[in-house]
Amino acid sequence: MAIELYWGSGSPYSWRVLLALEYKRLPYTSHLLQFSKQEHKSPQMLAMNFRGRVPVLKDGDYVVFESLATLYYLDQKYPEPPLFGRSAEEAGVIMRVICEYQAYAEEHVMRIVSAFLMAAPGRSVKQEDLAESMHVVASEARSIEARLATADWVVGDSISAADIVIFPSLQILLRVLAKPEARDLSSRFLPLDVNYPALSRWIARVEALPGYEKTYPPHWRDAS
Amino acid sequence: MAIELYWGSGSPYSWRVLLALEYKRLPYTSHLLQFSKQEHKSPQMLAMNFRGRVPVLKDGDYVVFESLATLYYLDQKYPEPPLFGRSAEEAGVIMRVICEYQAYAEEHVMRIVSAFLMAAPGRSVKQEDLAESMHVVASEARSIEARLATADWVVGDSISAADIVIFPSLQILLRVLAKPEARDLSSRFLPLDVNYPALSRWIARVEALPGYEKTYPPHWRDAS
Repeated sequence: MAIELYWGSGSPYSWRVLLALEYKRLPYTSHLLQFSKQEHKSPQMLAMNFRGRVPVLKDGDYVVFESLATLYYLDQKYPEPPLFGRSAEEAGVIMRVICEYQAYAEEHVMRIVSAFLMAAPGRSVKQEDLAESMHVVASEARSIEARLATADWVVGDSISAADIVIFPSLQILLRVLAKPEARDLSSRFLPLDVNYPALSRWIARVEALPGYEKTYPPHWRDAS
Repeated sequence: MAIELYWGSGSPYSWRVLLALEYKRLPYTSHLLQFSKQEHKSPQMLAMNFRGRVPVLKDGDYVVFESLATLYYLDQKYPEPPLFGRSAEEAGVIMRVICEYQAYAEEHVMRIVSAFLMAAPGRSVKQEDLAESMHVVASEARSIEARLATADWVVGDSISAADIVIFPSLQILLRVLAKPEARDLSSRFLPLDVNYPALSRWIARVEALPGYEKTYPPHWRDAS
């Protein structure tokens, strides 16, 4: 079976699947789509996912999308090393942390990211909404910081789907918060190594994983 | 190990876990909490889940919350009958349908439910927001209807976590849409058996499952 991944640069959801593929050392054909050319909305892509969203993973004839479902499929199909733990108890905590991130943090992270990356004139986000989102994100980050203060990984003693779900969004958030125009918002979050030292060390730990470079958004490299 | 479930009547998230426990025929001690008495925010509950949300499941000394994580834990710990499929491919589709429901439908379902169940004077929801949510829900329901037009269950040939995640929210939505004050909103959705015949048959199928009666929100029974 040959794995093919259709993805976009800077999509945190795509980044998750890239990290999982590299961690599991699975060979795959990479199809980097250009959002600016609407390649993710091509007839071929819509035939696989009518929502026109990435990532989409194809494994032989089998198609899966939605990043968490894709991580889950990969883990069921190629179990070693595991992404969802080695016991029912660990699996429950990994999924719980993922659910908490998705239910309580993700929309706020994405609101901040969208406000600075995709802000169009005339479609401004209210400052108080951004401040509220930053407040929630800081509080949720505090929970993860507490977990990482006594452990190398978010759950258990090796990287798991919990790390992989959270990491790309945090990286994108940090990139956005580093912009001069975000200074007011970021003042109590950054510098990360001062305010969230365990999170900061964890990021370095993920960045040191084999294959990490292949997952890094190519257009970030071009821009830096 | 003794399973204890802390839950609230009418919480779709609680209902999911009840359905899973009954489907797996697992014995459990039921702790029905009264939201009106803030029992879900008691010190005992906050010690298990600092967010003060239900359901919370305790299995011996192990505590898990967030409904999807709880379903996942139960399935890992007590695998038969399975909730997440019998192959990697089926597992991927089940998780994908759940992710799609959560990403695209759930917030709109809950917005409609909240508007009619918890509407407080002076905190009105905009009519156009409700209409937009109804539009999204109708469209997402159409996708599920298409799946159920050729199958008894949302994914695969038996009930799965996909059915269990979606069913309680749909039941609560239907209850809300049946209110006279929701008539404008519901006119193109109801009657369900006319507009969504496969969904309607699927609801009857879930209602016929052994143990279903034990999962039905007690305060609905009292009110009817």
